[in-house]
Amino acid sequence: MLDTLQFEIIKKDSKTKARRGILTLPNGTVQTPVFMPVGTQATVKAMKPEDVEKTGAEIILGNTYHLYLRPGEDIVRDAGGLHNFMNWKKPILTDSGGFQVFSLGDFRKITEEGVRFKSFIDGSFHDMTPESSIQIQNALGADIIMAFDECAPYPADRKYIDDSFRRTTRWLERCKSELDRIRNGSGRNAEIAEKQNLFGIMQGGMYLDMRIESAKQITEFDLPGYAIGGLSVGEPKDLMIEVLEGCVDYLPYDKPRYLMGVGTPDYIFEAVERGVDMFDCVLPTRLARHGVAMTSKGDISIKNAEHIRSFEPLDENCDCYVCRNYSRAYIRHLFKAGEIMSSMLLTEHNIHFLINMVAGIRKAIEEDRFKEYKKSFYSKYYDQYD
Amino acid sequence: MLDTLQFEIIKKDSKTKARRGILTLPNGTVQTPVFMPVGTQATVKAMKPEDVEKTGAEIILGNTYHLYLRPGEDIVRDAGGLHNFMNWKKPILTDSGGFQVFSLGDFRKITEEGVRFKSFIDGSFHDMTPESSIQIQNALGADIIMAFDECAPYPADRKYIDDSFRRTTRWLERCKSELDRIRNGSGRNAEIAEKQNLFGIMQGGMYLDMRIESAKQITEFDLPGYAIGGLSVGEPKDLMIEVLEGCVDYLPYDKPRYLMGVGTPDYIFEAVERGVDMFDCVLPTRLARHGVAMTSKGDISIKNAEHIRSFEPLDENCDCYVCRNYSRAYIRHLFKAGEIMSSMLLTEHNIHFLINMVAGIRKAIEEDRFKEYKKSFYSKYYDQYD
Repeated sequence: MLDTLQFEIIKKDSKTKARRGILTLPNGTVQTPVFMPVGTQATVKAMKPEDVEKTGAEIILGNTYHLYLRPGEDIVRDAGGLHNFMNWKKPILTDSGGFQVFSLGDFRKITEEGVRFKSFIDGSFHDMTPESSIQIQNALGADIIMAFDECAPYPADRKYIDDSFRRTTRWLERCKSELDRIRNGSGRNAEIAEKQNLFGIMQGGMYLDMRIESAKQITEFDLPGYAIGGLSVGEPKDLMIEVLEGCVDYLPYDKPRYLMGVGTPDYIFEAVERGVDMFDCVLPTRLARHGVAMTSKGDISIKNAEHIRSFEPLDENCDCYVCRNYSRAYIRHLFKAGEIMSSMLLTEHNIHFLINMVAGIRKAIEEDRFKEYKKSFYSKYYDQYD
Repeated sequence: MLDTLQFEIIKKDSKTKARRGILTLPNGTVQTPVFMPVGTQATVKAMKPEDVEKTGAEIILGNTYHLYLRPGEDIVRDAGGLHNFMNWKKPILTDSGGFQVFSLGDFRKITEEGVRFKSFIDGSFHDMTPESSIQIQNALGADIIMAFDECAPYPADRKYIDDSFRRTTRWLERCKSELDRIRNGSGRNAEIAEKQNLFGIMQGGMYLDMRIESAKQITEFDLPGYAIGGLSVGEPKDLMIEVLEGCVDYLPYDKPRYLMGVGTPDYIFEAVERGVDMFDCVLPTRLARHGVAMTSKGDISIKNAEHIRSFEPLDENCDCYVCRNYSRAYIRHLFKAGEIMSSMLLTEHNIHFLINMVAGIRKAIEEDRFKEYKKSFYSKYYDQYD
């Protein structure tokens, strides 16, 4: 069976490991490096899909855990899949549910079979296994689906991580078998599965030897892409970069590499520099709902009194819809008045900001000046000159 | 000084008093009868102004009471007026603050001078007078501004209403004088005031003789338009229609007539039939946030379990953005999940529904079949065949 994912690296930065690629998926083409906005519950919060597309977004995320619990994957399937349900016609990636099972469940029990967890909605108990995760993701119908893994906590001792990443590999094998089983079946599920691309997830905590072993194990499955999970889970930035630096190259050079859950500008730059292609994070949308705008000169809190009479746009260097049409004073007013429009405008601006930042990264790689772009961005955003 | 409002009646229904007009204002042309969506706090809740415009809306409302308290009219003026502040370039009408002073204040004291009230935001005390209302509305810069009036409660005895409507007339005189004073001044305020059109408001409770006396008094000021206030404040529908029927003709035939705060389909039809041209109401936006969609077959609550697997649009007879792209099942999911997108989609649909209903009224008047259209609409919306 041919995978429906194609990945081509069209340019490499000469001074770093940054690469510029084109990822072709059943529902469209994605320029990499890429930032993927998160649409947890079948909506990028507070944005119409057309407006998400206008920011330049080419692929978004959906969350298996949330959609399984509500509205239920069968409803999404019957609606013609997640693309149709939420009116987003470009590529979608769904996570496996693993991360949320561990981070949102106030009760969970891990066995070799899978995970038992408590619903965040009504407290009911549910089991999720590698097989059921793939079945759910098949019903959702995303272009890229993720293996069911354990995103181990930080800190965790060697014994815990050792058991965990090895089990994640065994679960990957079951995920792949389940996808193959569905593909070899008949009907609509098989048709959908044929077009879905399974990514394996490297784990191993902060232990580089286990990261490398995990990478070796999962790459044996010859999957269309690989992710790095379990980083940016609370560890210091230096440690995160050290681990990332030491493990990225153990993932195949010619396949897309996805660093899960990472979306702060500095983490994106550091990871691109080390050869990562894909990112996702709720940061821009969540900050927006808390009244924070990401700007080329750093984040600003629109609540602050200094914006009461500021008729400037959120970011003078931004050409997004929000910055072209609204002032800080107006958005502050909306936020203070509890108006939905505040979340709508700040979300659109923040998504545009990150998408545009990553577009700048792509252009810089094309022109072999990634480091210069990074330095220039940092000097303004972090007010940091080295 | 010439008023900048022009009103032309281009067609009259032969069997009723319904009329089809064109209202020309400084910021654009408005086809009447017209429904005006409400943007209380400088935003039509949960909608971008471009999307409001796409529904066919040609004029919206702003609320003087709210904008005076937050962000303050000086900020709106410094932002270049309400049009610029909120990015709505078509006509705007601001109310006088009178209605909210009476309906939202948990403390209020009426004197000949004006009203002392308590802020709904922080409980602070404020005074509003005919003069200050006009000054605030001048700062906001709407195309149509309303006289400061008392919207008397229902029920109220003859003595109360008699005192109240006569005071409202005296306040109107002061409003007109204040507008003239600003116009005869200099600078930006005078420039703005020159383009603003003051509407007087008829009061008189449910007492027809006082309604008629009120109409006679306010029309002596020869204003560019007149409103009917104090109806649809809790009285039975029959009584409302009876009063309306008996008083509309006392407003000049050749000037626009505005029935304030009315937005249910039946009240709009009944009022158009009696010669009213303009309407506003928070109904479509408020219903939306409570999960109710207005459809050609009546209102539906999207919360209801019957919509769980309904892949039909909200209204099969609707061609709005929402009905073209989303199912009831999706919108129900968004509502149950507490997603902002639920309010966004339901609001856009509901505004489109009412705007489109009134467009249908205009077309029906042009084709001299208002009664037939009303009957046809009622038969589906109210399941009522006569």
